[in-house]
Amino acid sequence: MPLKPDLPEPESVQKRVGLAIVGLGKLSAEELIPAIRTSQHTRVAALVTSDVEEGRALARAFDLTDGDVYAYDDFEALKDREDVDGVYIVLPNSLHREFTERAARMGKHVLCEKPLSVNAAEAQAMVDACRAAGVQLMTAYRCQYTPHHWAARDAVQGGRLGAVKLLDSIHVQVETDPEAWRMKIALAGGGPLPDVGLYSLNILRFVLGTEPEWVFAAQHQPKNDSRFREIEESVSFMLGFPGGVIANALTSYGAHKTTTLRVLGEEGNALMDPAFSYTGLSLSITDKGGQTLPAFGSYDQFGLEIDHFAERIRDGNTPWTPGEEGVQDHRIMDAIYESARTGQVVRLENYAGLDVFRGEKPELPG
Amino acid sequence: MPLKPDLPEPESVQKRVGLAIVGLGKLSAEELIPAIRTSQHTRVAALVTSDVEEGRALARAFDLTDGDVYAYDDFEALKDREDVDGVYIVLPNSLHREFTERAARMGKHVLCEKPLSVNAAEAQAMVDACRAAGVQLMTAYRCQYTPHHWAARDAVQGGRLGAVKLLDSIHVQVETDPEAWRMKIALAGGGPLPDVGLYSLNILRFVLGTEPEWVFAAQHQPKNDSRFREIEESVSFMLGFPGGVIANALTSYGAHKTTTLRVLGEEGNALMDPAFSYTGLSLSITDKGGQTLPAFGSYDQFGLEIDHFAERIRDGNTPWTPGEEGVQDHRIMDAIYESARTGQVVRLENYAGLDVFRGEKPELPG
Amino acid sequence: MPLKPDLPEPESVQKRVGLAIVGLGKLSAEELIPAIRTSQHTRVAALVTSDVEEGRALARAFDLTDGDVYAYDDFEALKDREDVDGVYIVLPNSLHREFTERAARMGKHVLCEKPLSVNAAEAQAMVDACRAAGVQLMTAYRCQYTPHHWAARDAVQGGRLGAVKLLDSIHVQVETDPEAWRMKIALAGGGPLPDVGLYSLNILRFVLGTEPEWVFAAQHQPKNDSRFREIEESVSFMLGFPGGVIANALTSYGAHKTTTLRVLGEEGNALMDPAFSYTGLSLSITDKGGQTLPAFGSYDQFGLEIDHFAERIRDGNTPWTPGEEGVQDHRIMDAIYESARTGQVVRLENYAGLDVFRGEKPELPG
Amino acid sequence: MPLKPDLPEPESVQKRVGLAIVGLGKLSAEELIPAIRTSQHTRVAALVTSDVEEGRALARAFDLTDGDVYAYDDFEALKDREDVDGVYIVLPNSLHREFTERAARMGKHVLCEKPLSVNAAEAQAMVDACRAAGVQLMTAYRCQYTPHHWAARDAVQGGRLGAVKLLDSIHVQVETDPEAWRMKIALAGGGPLPDVGLYSLNILRFVLGTEPEWVFAAQHQPKNDSRFREIEESVSFMLGFPGGVIANALTSYGAHKTTTLRVLGEEGNALMDPAFSYTGLSLSITDKGGQTLPAFGSYDQFGLEIDHFAERIRDGNTPWTPGEEGVQDHRIMDAIYESARTGQVVRLENYAGLDVFRGEKPELPG
Repeated sequence: MPLKPDLPEPESVQKRVGLAIVGLGKLSAEELIPAIRTSQHTRVAALVTSDVEEGRALARAFDLTDGDVYAYDDFEALKDREDVDGVYIVLPNSLHREFTERAARMGKHVLCEKPLSVNAAEAQAMVDACRAAGVQLMTAYRCQYTPHHWAARDAVQGGRLGAVKLLDSIHVQVETDPEAWRMKIALAGGGPLPDVGLYSLNILRFVLGTEPEWVFAAQHQPKNDSRFREIEESVSFMLGFPGGVIANALTSYGAHKTTTLRVLGEEGNALMDPAFSYTGLSLSITDKGGQTLPAFGSYDQFGLEIDHFAERIRDGNTPWTPGEEGVQDHRIMDAIYESARTGQVVRLENYAGLDVFRGEKPELPG
Repeated sequence: MPLKPDLPEPESVQKRVGLAIVGLGKLSAEELIPAIRTSQHTRVAALVTSDVEEGRALARAFDLTDGDVYAYDDFEALKDREDVDGVYIVLPNSLHREFTERAARMGKHVLCEKPLSVNAAEAQAMVDACRAAGVQLMTAYRCQYTPHHWAARDAVQGGRLGAVKLLDSIHVQVETDPEAWRMKIALAGGGPLPDVGLYSLNILRFVLGTEPEWVFAAQHQPKNDSRFREIEESVSFMLGFPGGVIANALTSYGAHKTTTLRVLGEEGNALMDPAFSYTGLSLSITDKGGQTLPAFGSYDQFGLEIDHFAERIRDGNTPWTPGEEGVQDHRIMDAIYESARTGQVVRLENYAGLDVFRGEKPELPG
Repeated sequence: MPLKPDLPEPESVQKRVGLAIVGLGKLSAEELIPAIRTSQHTRVAALVTSDVEEGRALARAFDLTDGDVYAYDDFEALKDREDVDGVYIVLPNSLHREFTERAARMGKHVLCEKPLSVNAAEAQAMVDACRAAGVQLMTAYRCQYTPHHWAARDAVQGGRLGAVKLLDSIHVQVETDPEAWRMKIALAGGGPLPDVGLYSLNILRFVLGTEPEWVFAAQHQPKNDSRFREIEESVSFMLGFPGGVIANALTSYGAHKTTTLRVLGEEGNALMDPAFSYTGLSLSITDKGGQTLPAFGSYDQFGLEIDHFAERIRDGNTPWTPGEEGVQDHRIMDAIYESARTGQVVRLENYAGLDVFRGEKPELPG
Repeated sequence: MPLKPDLPEPESVQKRVGLAIVGLGKLSAEELIPAIRTSQHTRVAALVTSDVEEGRALARAFDLTDGDVYAYDDFEALKDREDVDGVYIVLPNSLHREFTERAARMGKHVLCEKPLSVNAAEAQAMVDACRAAGVQLMTAYRCQYTPHHWAARDAVQGGRLGAVKLLDSIHVQVETDPEAWRMKIALAGGGPLPDVGLYSLNILRFVLGTEPEWVFAAQHQPKNDSRFREIEESVSFMLGFPGGVIANALTSYGAHKTTTLRVLGEEGNALMDPAFSYTGLSLSITDKGGQTLPAFGSYDQFGLEIDHFAERIRDGNTPWTPGEEGVQDHRIMDAIYESARTGQVVRLENYAGLDVFRGEKPELPG
């Protein structure tokens, strides 16, 4: 009686790329660790945390041992863990540089959550450190690894929409805890812009493949709201891309969760709504013939991103979203904040060509 | 056997407010005249046109006589037509002022298509002329008379979305004929901004009820495209409203038809998509409980607007969207063009209060 | 200055096919008369009504004269009206035969609302009378004339869905007035089945093009509800089509308005929802590649149907939905009621071939 | 620096209810094992398989040891595994009884995939065996444990739709492999009906809470299709519920995947589409005020079902969907096949009251 499982032969756990998760917040516990455990090529080898007791409880829940849990101060103990090939840094933004550099010194490859750092200079230092140490540095831009976002990009770059004229993106959500690290300028490097607004910025650049030439921005920071003592509540920014293409974007920590991306072309338009959620992404393409909603097989967004990192560790090629991709977003965000502060348009360095900060294209599932 | 028609007793045709349609383009022939014929309170009494032969063909198709058709030069003959209470001006923008002033001199009330004129100064002259003559001047802002747009406004102003933080609107379409009057700066006064972008501007102001304090804009005018020798192809504009509320908008004559409005509040958001179409308007309100799409009985958008004009002729009260409402949009559009030209933020005069340029609220059907 | 209306040259009113509307209920007043007035080829020439006073009010509202209004008893006065080419019968079902035969005797062509009559025998008599008199008889199956329903049919018959296996349709609504003629068996000939359920039956046959071979049905007639003393509240029916294709349908006067059609094929499925409404029809086709919602230009459903009638009057060809099409639906509805009464499957006469009861294909707009 | 994970404290793996998975097909490997690993109260303790080699590969991929893998012949070795509290039977239908009885003899609780067995008599024997052994028997009706389906049921039973009149459900998909066990009558006990059609049957009963009084069915089994030598391709069935409520359903192995549920009430209707998928369930409720799509937090459908089983093992209460619930569906499916064979209505035993075959209500998340 044939009962064979109809699934790709999983790599034996012991042969996979071993990762240490650095920082055990909600994202790690609820998304990243489960994604790694169901990925093709990676496994959780160690946990690094500020609270070893808590880390051990999590380790037990995920079949690791107490010996797999490390305090931040003991991070360098990973050097001798041959089963740890790389680290996934999921810390407050201001700590990304320190832990990246410490990992690089141990010869461990680095996958770092977005934003890469707190500004372009810090981010560039991370790139330099990893290059000097000969380890990979990849920025964890999840949305650049999904079939949905690639289909949107293909519609744009493949001409299905005709010449692209305008783009529009929104990523807003409500943050309620004034004490969260995201609300502290020293830890986060900014407010909603480098956290959720960065999705819009990064994916606008991704679908076009080109780099903005100028920005204008306005922001709002309410008085008398304890959440916004250090950071802005909302930012609106406008980006000028080559050829007169203009993109608008809105981001906020004060508005009900919404994530959208719209590309307006001469012959049609593309809409993603939701555009950046962990599940349930939806892409719709409309032209004079009507509306099409392409179907995609199911996949895990985080798993695709993490497996790309593992494959680049193995083959040594530059990841699709290396550190340089994260640096460029920081340059633009630095300019957005400058424009919001001065009320003036800020011009950016011009870069000709497509995907100038990106590496090897990811393989898409299915 | 009871076979009574279950419909509101229609006013007898002869008792209705008689209108002369000035300008017989596609909008008049396909939308306005049919809407008047099925309205509650108005009837088509005369047609005024550049091409009397063509006007007579149209008159015959709509049960009027040859004697009801007038050349532009014979416009003043309407003075003695006691059955003509008002005129509906559906001409190229640059002619709005002339025909409004000629109508006012005859003592005829004026309903004028949007934009009211070609700039704020010209528009203000129209307001002044009608005031001096003691006739009504109403700007034909169709979308301020529909149950859908009022439900969006009520969600915003009634608190259902919580405090409103950000707004976003798009109105783009493709224009293909370089010879159309809309492509001539002298006739249109601008490009897509005063034509389709005005919907976004006007409805953003309508749902908030407040007036913007500053604008920033960028535009694109391609070289080597015969359509855009005189006018811009696209405009992106950002509006700063009281309380730090920011709105983004995109408009173009070079992108596939799209009309949207989004309002982002602390507790929920509202989406209209399509937001400005003649039929098929859709409103969706999302909060943490999910998504709601309110249902509305069927109605004719143009009919509601035109009946409002008729009722204001009868009672003498100020229309909800008088000439002043049109002037204010021109002030803002003048500033948008100035910002696009100079690359600088342009500040606007502040107006405290709600609906400062509006008159008597329209009655909604059902 | 070119201001030419961009619309098809309308036929002069006087040259169009003149119709007498027989029965002035809500459908006539709100849908049919406005549709005729904006149609390409027809005009309202006369009104025939039980209440002449009321008819005159309606006439005045629609630019007709008192002389254009006739009592039912004066119906034969239309014989001498050379400007009346045909009649559109919009009466209670039980009167369809009488007025069809009276019209045929006058040599007037007949467009008759659905259901054609109250049972197959009565309906066949109408076909015979019109054939004998040499006048057209067309059943007013609006949904067989729309681009949406033809696109659904084309998806089915053109193979886009693969082999069709199963179909499903719903048409239910709430009727509240126990005194309405639709609730009287002598006037209506049945309950929701010949009124709204007939849409499902007729369009299931239309999209397949074939005829059912057997039916099974169950119905519910609640006690103690004054609306359902004479007629059923709900009917569920199952139809067996050639090749093992099975269709389910639900109809009711006791359930909130819902109209759907679903076709399930081996490679994809088609969904119309709403499927039978006057406006806002929606068609969606789903296959392994995703979902497509074709776009159609705007059109008036009633106008398309009525213009088809006018063109068949002019060319003498058989309409797409002649009387025979209405007779066949009555045969099937007679069988549905028999099955519901006996609890047994009822077999129907077999008809080989496609569209065996239909005439000349309608031209679709655009 | 606070970095506490914001997630419910997971039960330590060692304290959870241990389950042996019996049968390692695609459902086990891709859905059930991952769901157990992320559940609140259960863990995978052992795998039972026909192919021990393959089982060991899977075990390694999921952090189990070779010693945790058992051949079917060694099933009784689980008796001494104190860490195995229950078994989850995921075998071809015809083996459900044998393995349920073997598990019961070991004193292990049983969660059995749907359909419970191959007919009502076999299913009843399973109930009897578990009762005699004093172990739980739960039918794995996943859809009776989700917030979406409970919200649909609450809309029905809470009166939001008014009196319910009619229901409609579809569950069809394409099966391509003639050699799959699902295509063998001896292994599956039927065709699409007990596999996918059972979802419709079971959830129609669930949302109403009552039991059908009669059934009528028709089926189609094509000649010359190697897939359908033993089983039917499609079944259409009609169910008569108390109070004249009628439900239609369609199921097939020959039509593109579609899963829907519709409930038609006097004041509104509910639609689930997709209705039965593992992810992406959608519920919409429409009434005269419009349409509402309630939002639910994310959850794992299988995890909710499996945790319910674990909690009933711990407290000894009857599960919401015990064996008796599975037996009743078999009684109805037996009648459906009889009706399809005879062409006659088949009457069922009447059961007064609500939820007569169900146990303790599940707790819903959030």
